[in-house]
Amino acid sequence: MHPVVPVQWSNDGRAVRIIDQRELPERLVQRDITTLDEFCAAIRTLAVRGAPAIGVFAAMALACVMQRRVELARDAFDRELALAAERLRTTRPTAVNLAWAIDCMLECAHSTQGEALGVAAALRRTADALHADDVAMCRRIGEHALPLLTDGARVLTHCNAGALATTGIGTALAPIYLAHEAGRSVHVIASETRPLLQGSRLTAWELERAGIPVTVATDGAIASLMRTGMIDLAIVGADRIAANGDVANKIGTYALAVLARHHGLPFYVAAPTSTIDPDMASGADIPIEARDPHEVRAFRGAPAAPLGVAALNPAFDVTPAELLTAIVTDRATYYPPYDFRGVSG
Amino acid sequence: MHPVVPVQWSNDGRAVRIIDQRELPERLVQRDITTLDEFCAAIRTLAVRGAPAIGVFAAMALACVMQRRVELARDAFDRELALAAERLRTTRPTAVNLAWAIDCMLECAHSTQGEALGVAAALRRTADALHADDVAMCRRIGEHALPLLTDGARVLTHCNAGALATTGIGTALAPIYLAHEAGRSVHVIASETRPLLQGSRLTAWELERAGIPVTVATDGAIASLMRTGMIDLAIVGADRIAANGDVANKIGTYALAVLARHHGLPFYVAAPTSTIDPDMASGADIPIEARDPHEVRAFRGAPAAPLGVAALNPAFDVTPAELLTAIVTDRATYYPPYDFRGVSG
Repeated sequence: MHPVVPVQWSNDGRAVRIIDQRELPERLVQRDITTLDEFCAAIRTLAVRGAPAIGVFAAMALACVMQRRVELARDAFDRELALAAERLRTTRPTAVNLAWAIDCMLECAHSTQGEALGVAAALRRTADALHADDVAMCRRIGEHALPLLTDGARVLTHCNAGALATTGIGTALAPIYLAHEAGRSVHVIASETRPLLQGSRLTAWELERAGIPVTVATDGAIASLMRTGMIDLAIVGADRIAANGDVANKIGTYALAVLARHHGLPFYVAAPTSTIDPDMASGADIPIEARDPHEVRAFRGAPAAPLGVAALNPAFDVTPAELLTAIVTDRATYYPPYDFRGVSG
Repeated sequence: MHPVVPVQWSNDGRAVRIIDQRELPERLVQRDITTLDEFCAAIRTLAVRGAPAIGVFAAMALACVMQRRVELARDAFDRELALAAERLRTTRPTAVNLAWAIDCMLECAHSTQGEALGVAAALRRTADALHADDVAMCRRIGEHALPLLTDGARVLTHCNAGALATTGIGTALAPIYLAHEAGRSVHVIASETRPLLQGSRLTAWELERAGIPVTVATDGAIASLMRTGMIDLAIVGADRIAANGDVANKIGTYALAVLARHHGLPFYVAAPTSTIDPDMASGADIPIEARDPHEVRAFRGAPAAPLGVAALNPAFDVTPAELLTAIVTDRATYYPPYDFRGVSG
């Protein structure tokens, strides 16, 4: 079965068709979007989310908006591209794939001679290549991680690092899809991932759709499941990996890594090479997005706390490298000590 | 300021007036209830919750329903009391205070001679005594735990072990109220406590009402707050304490205890002596209530997961005694190794 594709070109190629992930799991809503404002809002509101997916999406966004500006003189075109790139870049600070994909697009324009029409075409080809690379990257991550799953493995994952977070079969979920494809038994425990419940809303939805057994539990219940022997290993995605192997990922990841260590369970990170940021010496340097506290105080319209109460809502946390059993990328499986200086996507 | 009282007699003394905690924090709804069905439903649906509160509430329930049966012959009265007691006892299995309070009531009837009218009066006096004892017990816990809080302490608590969980100033929150009363600075971090959010809905609500600074965070974010130095210590309540000091408490407690240990932070349990169950050798023997998985799949009507997906919803977990810095009761502060054999409420 083909996995869901959260971002793709519309039928006429003039818009980007997204799955609005805020509507899942109740409704599978697709929307075609075309303007820079819409692209930025889609990322900021998490209609499109997942580090690899927002990278590809930002590239498609630039290709989409610039293909309508081919009448501009080259220097005006370049200025407008730069402005659009900066607006997209600042939508979310933590996932480095976003900046990486935008830089790929700027580099493409920079290295293309001639008039705007030709540059727009080159941008489109680059966005398409990033989309295709992402699909292939997911599969390679899955192949590298597959040996980590024994038959019958009960695998904990956090947030959604699946098809909905990429344009392929996901990162953390890639080996799950490959194991299932190969007829092997695998059972996923999805921690719900408050505040926005990407685990219970999205991971559970896409795995159910693929016929892969999945059980949801609250973030606070996972420790108990580990203690009673219901989890064999954990695999999560990443939003940015520092040179020393520290990993920024969805809030709650660090807790699960500490708990896995306490219970002697392997804890793996799976991510494309583009997630590695060799310029960050350690996780302490990674910018952590603080989102609106109201995401904690309410859930989809239902109050979860007194309206005005103080609430902290860091969207990510940093798991120190020493808590990771291995980091699996599209290139290789890395074991500690990690040294990603000089590695680039 | 007087704390909120979740269970008390109605003005005419013929009903039990409860705060329906399912309606908080949006609405402070009080309801007067009188029938055994209503009492059982109130406990089962968590309209009334918190180990000490449901103990007192069950005692008041028995007094309430039996005071309408004084026309019965004594043996019929006793049979009806026994049936009512068993129905209340089986509403929730984990908190031992419920069974303990019911046993106090049965013991009262057993030791009272004469006709039903006199027994009903004795039951009422016993329920009132349990209510008053609970108030005093909360204050003694607070006094014992107060020295654990340095001025300016940032205290993590989980679920709600406050005024709403008792008839007094709470258990885990008792030293917070006393510190605040004494003019000392104290700041509470309330972990939201999925699935039913007693931390963000109830603890935040009652502390705000009392003017005590409180900040809410998701259960998954607490590890990150510990790592970045925003928490000094943790105090939680308990639903049952085994003879060896293992503690059953709201799901998510065990994770926080492991995380506190990892970060070198003190982790305290505060509970009345009636929470100790010397008949349970260890936490492994404590029955853990499994609640409806739908509590995980939705929150107050808003879907949190695909409708039919498998979900685990253990309401409690067990924290092994070795992760506790101390157990504070109304009698004393106990340090490891714990030995509660022979201790009774």
